[in-house]
Amino acid sequence: YSVFRLALHPGLCLSCVLSSHVTECFNSPYGTKYFPEYAEKIPGECTQKLSEVAKECSIYLIGGSIPEEDAGKLYNTCAVFGPDGTLLVKHRKVSRGRSTREVETGNPVIHLCHCSLPFTSQGCQLLVYPGAFNMTTGPAHWELLQRGRAVDNQVYVATASPARDDKASYVAWGHSTVVNPWGEVLAKAGTEETILYSDIDLEKLAEIRQQIPILRQKRSDLYAVEMKKP
Amino acid sequence: YSVFRLALHPGLCLSCVLSSHVTECFNSPYGTKYFPEYAEKIPGECTQKLSEVAKECSIYLIGGSIPEEDAGKLYNTCAVFGPDGTLLVKHRKVSRGRSTREVETGNPVIHLCHCSLPFTSQGCQLLVYPGAFNMTTGPAHWELLQRGRAVDNQVYVATASPARDDKASYVAWGHSTVVNPWGEVLAKAGTEETILYSDIDLEKLAEIRQQIPILRQKRSDLYAVEMKKP
Repeated sequence: YSVFRLALHPGLCLSCVLSSHVTECFNSPYGTKYFPEYAEKIPGECTQKLSEVAKECSIYLIGGSIPEEDAGKLYNTCAVFGPDGTLLVKHRKVSRGRSTREVETGNPVIHLCHCSLPFTSQGCQLLVYPGAFNMTTGPAHWELLQRGRAVDNQVYVATASPARDDKASYVAWGHSTVVNPWGEVLAKAGTEETILYSDIDLEKLAEIRQQIPILRQKRSDLYAVEMKKP
Repeated sequence: YSVFRLALHPGLCLSCVLSSHVTECFNSPYGTKYFPEYAEKIPGECTQKLSEVAKECSIYLIGGSIPEEDAGKLYNTCAVFGPDGTLLVKHRKVSRGRSTREVETGNPVIHLCHCSLPFTSQGCQLLVYPGAFNMTTGPAHWELLQRGRAVDNQVYVATASPARDDKASYVAWGHSTVVNPWGEVLAKAGTEETILYSDIDLEKLAEIRQQIPILRQKRSDLYAVEMKKP
């Protein structure tokens, strides 16, 4: 099956890479009907490999997602590894949920999460989505939603999609993308397998947040997003 | 000063018009420094005229906004009128606040509000924003944010901007726009004064909500937006 590599080089003291065949359900065809056959434990065979690659290359590695089996239940799960190979966090996909984890990188700190909730107030600077839009939602919404999330939350947004395989049961749109907090597309893949590089400029991020101080203008007296324990 | 007319014809049994020189701060130059000089009571001279136009034409009229004075305080306020000239609701702008009001139109019902909060769960089908982006945020974000709001909330979005006046102290981007719930631009003005018409198709809206059931997939067990009394 077709897969995609996306490498982010945020510069400064940080080496953060989303790479190595890691998109949504990269170890399985896309579709919940394939989950029972391809599901693994985490840690397990697949995430062990990811851990080894992270350590070998001394990088942060956001491991796309795989079907996960735990206590008889199935999840679509993303695992994130540190430069020493440690599993930092795993995120189980929910329709619109949350999973955030502070990844210490000296200075600055980058937060990694999958969500469209307002994480900026929690210090989030980069949203990473391994995703697989189809041939209907892809052309209509793939880029739009990334640019929208970037501007709304004043964050960088990076997505990794499977490459397009017209013979697959689920035909992915492709077009992995990196967007800056101003909503500009910094890098965008085609439909073929490729590696995409982009610099994440945290000084530019700080400038934009100063220019349009969304966070300071927030009216917590009028509304609030309440996070609940699952 | 330059102003803009935007007329929406939602079809079916509904006649809803945003019109008649009604954009953000349409009775004053744009900028809070002009508020003390141009502020009025609501109801007052300006909104009395809007009420008369609504009644005369038998339309719903979303009256852009004007600086409002009340109890020694100043607000940037939008007033909405019914076909009999009644003031249905007034909304005082907040950085990111809320004001929603159900406007009974037989069947279907259209809700009018100014906000980026998730009003879909409250039955909102049309978001209307009288707004004035500038020459920096306009080209970067004016259309993007409207398309983003439309797709995120599965609603129609309509914006009315002042026409561009290069000699004004605040140069507005212009480009009043109507976007459908799929994120497609249905109608878009240039920078000159004009009237813009667009049909609001509530059957198409229902189809899109059925196709991608965002509302049903919402995980209220994980998070919730809490609305507070101001």
